[in-house]
Amino acid sequence: MDLAAGIDIGGTKTKLGLVNQSGECVIDMNFRTKEYPNLDDFLDQTIKSVKELIDQYPNKVNLLGIGIGAPNASNTRGTIEYAPNLYWKGIVPLLDKLKQRMDTPMLVTNDANAAALGEMLFGNAKGMHDFVVITLGTGLGSGVVANGSIVYGYDGFAGEYGHFAMMPVDGRVDGLGVVGGLEAYVSATGLKRTIMYLISKYTYESRFRSIAFNDLHGEEITEAAEQGDPIALKAFDYTGEILGKALANFTLFSQPEAYFLVGGLANSGKWIFEPTQKYMDQSLLEMYRGKVKIMASGMAEKNAAISGAAALIWREQA
Amino acid sequence: MDLAAGIDIGGTKTKLGLVNQSGECVIDMNFRTKEYPNLDDFLDQTIKSVKELIDQYPNKVNLLGIGIGAPNASNTRGTIEYAPNLYWKGIVPLLDKLKQRMDTPMLVTNDANAAALGEMLFGNAKGMHDFVVITLGTGLGSGVVANGSIVYGYDGFAGEYGHFAMMPVDGRVDGLGVVGGLEAYVSATGLKRTIMYLISKYTYESRFRSIAFNDLHGEEITEAAEQGDPIALKAFDYTGEILGKALANFTLFSQPEAYFLVGGLANSGKWIFEPTQKYMDQSLLEMYRGKVKIMASGMAEKNAAISGAAALIWREQA
Repeated sequence: MDLAAGIDIGGTKTKLGLVNQSGECVIDMNFRTKEYPNLDDFLDQTIKSVKELIDQYPNKVNLLGIGIGAPNASNTRGTIEYAPNLYWKGIVPLLDKLKQRMDTPMLVTNDANAAALGEMLFGNAKGMHDFVVITLGTGLGSGVVANGSIVYGYDGFAGEYGHFAMMPVDGRVDGLGVVGGLEAYVSATGLKRTIMYLISKYTYESRFRSIAFNDLHGEEITEAAEQGDPIALKAFDYTGEILGKALANFTLFSQPEAYFLVGGLANSGKWIFEPTQKYMDQSLLEMYRGKVKIMASGMAEKNAAISGAAALIWREQA
Repeated sequence: MDLAAGIDIGGTKTKLGLVNQSGECVIDMNFRTKEYPNLDDFLDQTIKSVKELIDQYPNKVNLLGIGIGAPNASNTRGTIEYAPNLYWKGIVPLLDKLKQRMDTPMLVTNDANAAALGEMLFGNAKGMHDFVVITLGTGLGSGVVANGSIVYGYDGFAGEYGHFAMMPVDGRVDGLGVVGGLEAYVSATGLKRTIMYLISKYTYESRFRSIAFNDLHGEEITEAAEQGDPIALKAFDYTGEILGKALANFTLFSQPEAYFLVGGLANSGKWIFEPTQKYMDQSLLEMYRGKVKIMASGMAEKNAAISGAAALIWREQA
């Protein structure tokens, strides 16, 4: 059976799976990235895991290759570079070292680009040539597709919308030190920061007055919104306003048919989708109005990152 | 001889020429767009002019097609839509109507995209796969190339960097009503507005205290900078700071290898190029630093727009 391996390298976990032509992950496993602070140990464990998956799968596997999604990855150089959430510092020659361990086609790109490829091959972006996937986790990542191809840029670092300085004057500082960087507002962490900001600004009663920043979780904010907590409601409106206006501006770049919101914060559903669409529509220029959709992922959430990474390989078969 | 026709439709003049495989315009003419407020008259005149060029050219012409650059043009629909500087309002079915008049391949795109194609085929972007052309005229236009192709977007209106809201709070209003829109600062008109702003802000002696806004011309500001006029010097620094910071942000979108500054304001040379490069370099994220160039056009200025439009046709031959 023809299968592609997909690997999603995250700061906490590394997830692996074998993925069929429909994008289904037919077998998967994971291990803790943090247990392998030594790069060579990590790479040994990764290849060992791929081989285990192949051995464990009940049918004979014809492995087409390995696709990898990783933070700060360069597709052209096969590297991970200066990833703030990983142990291995500087420039990591990922593909060169993996290829010494196993002889199969290998491709790498950043996790948001992998999500975009997954959506295009297997999810809700099938048939679209111009769209953007926005990943809303600890930070904000973006995978941009134009003319049916990922926009990689000169050496693989295009599509970093999370660090766009949307509030250059008196804005919040983001993870890379950018003043007013979008992800400081729009991400799971950004939403928590907004809760603190709104508590500082208003006098409404709210359950969040009794919860410390470090004890606050995203799901709880959605739950509070559903119960009518005024700070939670304002927090989603504020987040949607900043994201909606940012997406209206970003439309000037690539005029996408749709923005897909995926990952942690996107699970808040209507609380984030509705204000984002509303404020984006208000801010779009005439020539774009009514043509840009805000959409949810069409991928099964559990293994979306694995399927997206495997899409790097499946795309080459098309 | 194989030649492509290039047509540049502007608010004032329409320029036409025949262009060879090297991008040289071997014969050209122009007429005043404003003399043809009736669309059909304009189209008749355009086709008549193309035929005249072919007749006047001393050798036998094998016409490969007609490429057209026009403001607010959609490549996918072959239209000009809501162009503020043209007589013909609403949606103009340009290609449909031209094809009724002459049977040859025809393509249209906006003028900045045509400039980008010209630069890629015939100018200083030869061999580049990722770059952006910024046209600095009355407004600010942009033609974005990613993965070796123009980014057209869902229906042809991608790459409108001039209307990005860079100063959303208390910013200048641009030609489409965008508060803080980039072209209100960075364009031939934006530079004039900056002169007025600086006169309002400072008390320096300057020749511009005796010149009214409507009497002010771009060349004069360059001349004044060369003579050390403090308002002119500050105006270029201010413009370069806003453009440089904007380009640093835009790099998050497509990570281009180079930004080409072309058109009116670019003729100010070092006065605009140097501060733009300086402020961009200061603002670029680590992963982009030292990799993004600010460059001048490699096209002969006189017929750059004609050659760029013809590049639409020459590109199809490659």
